[in-house]
Amino acid sequence: MKNKDHITIAHGSGGVLSRELLDEYVFAAFSNPYIDQKHDGAVVPVDGQLVISTDSFVIDPIFFKGGDIGELSVNGTVNDVAMCGGIPAYLSLSFIIEEGLALADLKKIICSIRKAAERAGVQIVTGDTKVVEKGKGDKIFINTTGVGTLHLKADIRLQRVRPGDRIVINAPVAAHGMAIMSQREGLTFESDIVSDTQNLNKMVEVMLDRFGEEIHLLRDATRGGLAGVLNEVAEDRNIGIHINEEAVPIDSQVAAACELLGIDPLYVANEGVFMAVVSESVAKEVVELLRKEFHQTESGVIGECTESHTGKVVLNSHLGGKRFIYPQIGEQLPRIC
Amino acid sequence: MKNKDHITIAHGSGGVLSRELLDEYVFAAFSNPYIDQKHDGAVVPVDGQLVISTDSFVIDPIFFKGGDIGELSVNGTVNDVAMCGGIPAYLSLSFIIEEGLALADLKKIICSIRKAAERAGVQIVTGDTKVVEKGKGDKIFINTTGVGTLHLKADIRLQRVRPGDRIVINAPVAAHGMAIMSQREGLTFESDIVSDTQNLNKMVEVMLDRFGEEIHLLRDATRGGLAGVLNEVAEDRNIGIHINEEAVPIDSQVAAACELLGIDPLYVANEGVFMAVVSESVAKEVVELLRKEFHQTESGVIGECTESHTGKVVLNSHLGGKRFIYPQIGEQLPRIC
Repeated sequence: MKNKDHITIAHGSGGVLSRELLDEYVFAAFSNPYIDQKHDGAVVPVDGQLVISTDSFVIDPIFFKGGDIGELSVNGTVNDVAMCGGIPAYLSLSFIIEEGLALADLKKIICSIRKAAERAGVQIVTGDTKVVEKGKGDKIFINTTGVGTLHLKADIRLQRVRPGDRIVINAPVAAHGMAIMSQREGLTFESDIVSDTQNLNKMVEVMLDRFGEEIHLLRDATRGGLAGVLNEVAEDRNIGIHINEEAVPIDSQVAAACELLGIDPLYVANEGVFMAVVSESVAKEVVELLRKEFHQTESGVIGECTESHTGKVVLNSHLGGKRFIYPQIGEQLPRIC
Repeated sequence: MKNKDHITIAHGSGGVLSRELLDEYVFAAFSNPYIDQKHDGAVVPVDGQLVISTDSFVIDPIFFKGGDIGELSVNGTVNDVAMCGGIPAYLSLSFIIEEGLALADLKKIICSIRKAAERAGVQIVTGDTKVVEKGKGDKIFINTTGVGTLHLKADIRLQRVRPGDRIVINAPVAAHGMAIMSQREGLTFESDIVSDTQNLNKMVEVMLDRFGEEIHLLRDATRGGLAGVLNEVAEDRNIGIHINEEAVPIDSQVAAACELLGIDPLYVANEGVFMAVVSESVAKEVVELLRKEFHQTESGVIGECTESHTGKVVLNSHLGGKRFIYPQIGEQLPRIC
């Protein structure tokens, strides 16, 4: 293994090789007035209430159908800021790299990060790079922390969820998890399933512009899937949530793969799906907005909040029955994000 | 290995076990109005220019003489915010835990984080926890990202460094690196060497209150040691820096350990040492402040910036000679922070 093609421990030393790596790979990719200071931090302007969110990404494999760990690490954090009603503006970027990672792979990942940051309209303003010995990490882990200002019309709080509110989702469920699973397990029969990773902040910003306080809560359905976030809301707010199974959009290939593997798609991780709890009065308009202006053609109202079945999520199945959707206990699929 | 005493993959799933881990360990430790929202992000008030800094901590061993990875992960990021002239207020906290970590160790680390955050006067406002399989990480990696407002009197920029400026440091060098090295290599003969990890933000805040724009640059001497930061400044500013060897404080035991192992203490990592480039007119007062109000009894003026030897760091040795201090090329000690 040659030093010039792969990451070595010396790249993490704080010496000349560290600086070269930063100059050639990181600073070259993310030039802006803040990161160009090459300091250990950045000074940036803000105005108003601040939204902060952090996520570490440990997904395996690092390159997958529909994206890679770099794109995911931007979208994931940008989306979390958006789910708080924030307009993400700045990201920090921190790598933990396993010795031996090909520099070509690092370059690809950094390129994805740059593109995803451009799409989401955020700037990478500060960062950090550490290297660990072979066998003490797994290729690369990425942490991003997102900072933005709170949308002036946002009042996103669990306490605002109330009976009668509608549950809107923007896109079909289970694509990300099934893309990772099929690739990791070598299930070539589902080769067309791609991750749904996308930035949601632009949609959320326009939703808040348009509907303001009628948007009561936003959650992206990542680890634990749609079932996970619905249960969190039902339990923490002590409210019932009724979901119509046939209203939940799912791609037919994804559904087939789930059925074949005996997996409930409601528990499968997504990376571009959020649910919005909104006033009944605006639910249809929110769906129209997402469909027409953001090409979320499968967006729909999937259910509502109720006074009955407090703390529970109830699924009205397309066969006419009802069943509880319980939170999952342990892992369905580790290292999905 | 029992589930109830150790971290399992299921703790990272986003399911019930993830929530229990968060509730019992994280939310219980860091309760404040922001983190109590239990959302994927936090909304916090700020006012003015924002300072952001991020660091991932991968130190091995995770418990060491004088501190642990938890304390380090607070101090390191708080210090980076301070070095930018920021007054750190909020931290995000992200864990990447290797399957099998003892929950008792996690608890100890979280306790250290809480204490260190209290000392530094910062609040943990949001976080993330991921679990990776045994052999794909190393016990625990921690990312913290710090956010604060820029001190109103701060004008900390490389461009402000000029010939005649004095270099002040606050504390003896090389303690952190030698503490880690002696512990990792089982060198019991140096058993009294403890890491110098400490938060520097309170000192910096008072320095800026008192001396404002006379403080031209601040850098903490972590990876790469004092030699690393001095070379960065000399090179990036294209200025000479002359250091008086006998003015650089070092603990006698640390010096003895360095000599025995043939290590130059100027290259050894510190976690509680910063250098300030200040106007000549205030240099002595800065030292007095650090000594009297912050118990930095070894603080002193160690050198100055010059028009000669641009881009270089020159050491005036106590024997009367001069030599260049070059930046280090590769690793001295991996995973020091």
